[in-house]
Formats: sequence, structure tokens, C-alpha cells
Amino acid sequence: MERAIGVFDSGIGGLTVLREIISLLPEEDTIYLGDTARVPYGTKSAETVRRYAIENARFLVDQGIKILVVACNTASAYSLPALQTLLSIPVVGVVEPGARRAKEVTRNGRVGVIGTEGTIKSRAYEGLLEGYGLQVFSRPCPLFVPLVEEGWIDEEVTYLTAKKYLEPLKEKGVDTLILGCTHYPLLKGVIKKVMGDVNLVDSAEETAKEVRAILEESGGLKKGGGSIHRFFVTDSPERFRAVGRRFLRNNLRDVRKVDIPLL
Amino acid sequence: MERAIGVFDSGIGGLTVLREIISLLPEEDTIYLGDTARVPYGTKSAETVRRYAIENARFLVDQGIKILVVACNTASAYSLPALQTLLSIPVVGVVEPGARRAKEVTRNGRVGVIGTEGTIKSRAYEGLLEGYGLQVFSRPCPLFVPLVEEGWIDEEVTYLTAKKYLEPLKEKGVDTLILGCTHYPLLKGVIKKVMGDVNLVDSAEETAKEVRAILEESGGLKKGGGSIHRFFVTDSPERFRAVGRRFLRNNLRDVRKVDIPLL
Repeated sequence: MERAIGVFDSGIGGLTVLREIISLLPEEDTIYLGDTARVPYGTKSAETVRRYAIENARFLVDQGIKILVVACNTASAYSLPALQTLLSIPVVGVVEPGARRAKEVTRNGRVGVIGTEGTIKSRAYEGLLEGYGLQVFSRPCPLFVPLVEEGWIDEEVTYLTAKKYLEPLKEKGVDTLILGCTHYPLLKGVIKKVMGDVNLVDSAEETAKEVRAILEESGGLKKGGGSIHRFFVTDSPERFRAVGRRFLRNNLRDVRKVDIPLL
Repeated sequence: MERAIGVFDSGIGGLTVLREIISLLPEEDTIYLGDTARVPYGTKSAETVRRYAIENARFLVDQGIKILVVACNTASAYSLPALQTLLSIPVVGVVEPGARRAKEVTRNGRVGVIGTEGTIKSRAYEGLLEGYGLQVFSRPCPLFVPLVEEGWIDEEVTYLTAKKYLEPLKEKGVDTLILGCTHYPLLKGVIKKVMGDVNLVDSAEETAKEVRAILEESGGLKKGGGSIHRFFVTDSPERFRAVGRRFLRNNLRDVRKVDIPLL
């Protein structure tokens, strides 16, 4: 049996990454795990997020996967080295592909990063970007996730919130802004309205390219045949199905609740 | 050794209930558990919230408590009967005291209820209020919790959000509004601005009175001596201390991280 591409996220947001993977590699089978019983990760400590990430990864490895995608910025920021040490398959996070892309597109070397409290506190993006010789300005935007989950994509409230969060970054003259949370691409419209003419870097696309590159290089690409997409969640599938539709732009079939073994 | 009053919440919000208990019963020892590694409960399923509530309750019982206060509306709405069946000590939730108070203060019999998605979906308040012969109008307000945690108590964004959520209730002519989530009392100012002259019912005060009544009746009140307040959290104490100060209006000493045994 062909092994699948494994993707996990704290909840629903990682579906934006899965969507790009499916669009780039339509023949591949995928298994997605959303840790909806413990979502969000963005306000939790490094230690707790790392433990959750390892538990999720083990569950997916037991399902038979050939590559693991950590489709959550906070989990990527806090747990990628640990996962790469523990697992014998390739592990791809969303932080490095996003940072690399920012380096490619910035002209003035001034890059903004927005994300959850955890992602920003981890300084994971800063570390990489400063290593590339870029100037970094970062800002946590904790209300963006609940605004997206509420479906307030194009509301006055959302615009005012974005203004409050983003104007300080705009004043710093950044020409590139990394959307360092998988929920944020859904707010591209409002973010552009506040930021004006800047490059928005969406890690989802970059991460999908990285997955393809690794599979190509290792000869691990699936050859033909229909693809199967399976979904697991740790809380009841009901809310995941309802909200997930907005992220995957598709109906979610085959969503099952699982109890993942804890460390 | 005197046994303490045990209080648990999904995270920080229950501190508003603890504050009222301490203010009404200043001689009592208290133990508070905030399940910050799995917060929030308001967007999670009944089954998952019930499991978490039982795990939290068992942890507190093992610490030696004489009464358990479920200081979270969602956990009260979904798990009170289960906890009352499982435990041999009195168990007090926040839903019934709030509903009773609304019955006392309403003049026109039209009562509004706001809370998390879970609390509203459970229809726990509705069941009680309709049993009293009142007309109930309810509305989930999922952005209120993240707004409070962000500290945006008195912002334009918060006012517009409140307007969007509450104007439909206002139009129904409710004269009483139950703040069915422990975070909401911090938004009283904004809520009043939108709702005008209505009675705001804060379950925290009512729940504290209920605890006192039960302890008085059973002869369980502590007699004199200094009081000790201990705090446990399931994620790192750092964020709990920082945000918790706004809720308890006091510095939080003696906060320890624990791993609670799972079912």
C-alpha cells in the first residue's frame, strides 16, 4: 500500500496547507489530524505545545505516512527540531518555507511577521530572517484566529482590529509581510487594505512546494491512481466539518474522532 | 486539617467566581485549578468538556476539598449532573445561581442569555428559565473571551462587536441579561453602553452566595484562622499569572503546574 502525506495542525487552520498540497500533488493520498480537543496552541507554552506535537506526530506515523507536515506555525516554531530528531521520515514545518520566500521577495530588506503569541515569542521567524541579514518587525495578532473562526472576514470590526495590529508594522516601512498563522490567509483582503502595496507571504504555498521537492528528490512521489484524503480530529467532527469547509473550499468527508495516545 | 473550597475552570475566567467567594468567605481556604493546557471549553463538544470536567474534579477531590465549584459556564452546562452523581461532596455550578437571580430581577419576564457556543448550544440556561415561565433569547458571543484576554476592555472594536452581538437581544425587549461566561463581567461597561438600562446578572456573585448557603447549612464553614489560596494550572503558570491579575485584582502567588491524571 502507498504511504500517505501526513499533516497535523492544532485544529482547522492547517487545512489551508493541505489544500495547497492537494492542488500541487493531486495524486497523493493524505492523512490530516486536527487536534481540536486541545486547540489553540498559540496561547500555550513551548513545553505543552511540544508535547502535543510529539503525540500528534506519533499518531500519524502509526497510520503509515512517508513525510510529516507540521501545518501549524506555533507547533513548527516550538517542536520542529524535536520531531526531526525523533522521527525517521522527513519532517517539514511552515516557518522555514515562509522565511525563505520572504528573503526572495523583499526589496528593501524590511520584513514584517505576524502570528500567534507563541509563534512570535518563539522568535523562530526572526532567527531565520536575521540570519539572512534582513530587518524583522513582528507582532502577535491574537484576535485574528477567533475573527476568522467567527466568519467575520470582511467586517468593520475586523478592519479596525487589523489597523490596530498592523499600522505599527506599516510605519516601519516593511515591504513584505509573513502571514505566520494558517488562519491569516483568509484575512488577506483586510490585511491588504491596511498594509497597502506589500508582498504577503503565505507559508501554505511555500510549504507545499517544499513537500514536492523532498518527495521528488527521494523518489517518493506516488505514481498515478486515485487519491484518498482522510481526516482525524480529537474532538467531535461536527464543528470541524462546518468551519473546515471555509478553509478547504470543499466538503469534508471521512472525518473521524480519535483518542491519540498521550506521552 | 481544614478542607478547602475547590474551584475549577477551563482557564482564567473562573477567577471572577473565586474573587466573589473570597470576598464573601474571607476565612476559607481555596484551591483553584485552571485547565490552561486545554482551554477554551466553549468551542468544544459536550463529550469532551464532560471528560475534562471529571478529570479536573478528581484532581481537586484528591487535594482534599469539602465542596466543588464548577466556575465555568460551559463545564457547568454540560457536566453538572455527571459530577453530582460521581462525587460525594456538594457540587455547585454557575448556571443555576445565575438563572435564579434572573428570575428574581426581571419585571417583564423577558431574559437574554449570552455565553460561549457550548453554553448556548447546551440550552442549560433556557431549560431552567423556561421552567420558571420566562421568555428566553440567547446568543453566543465567541469574540468576547479573546477580546477580554487581549485586554481590549474599552476599545471601539469591542463596542462594535458588542453591538453586533447584542442589538438583536435589545430589540427583543429583554430587561435582564445573564452574563453566561466568567469573562463577560469584565465587559460590563461596553455591554451596558449597548444594552442601556437592563439588569446584568453576573453568576459569580450568585454562585458565591450559594456556596456560603450550602456550607452554613451543613455546618461546614471554617472557624477563624488565616486563609490559604492555592492555584494549579495545567500549562505553564506564566501567562496565567499575567492575565489572571486582571481577573482577581490581586497578585497570584503560589501557582503551580500539574499534570492531571486522565480518564
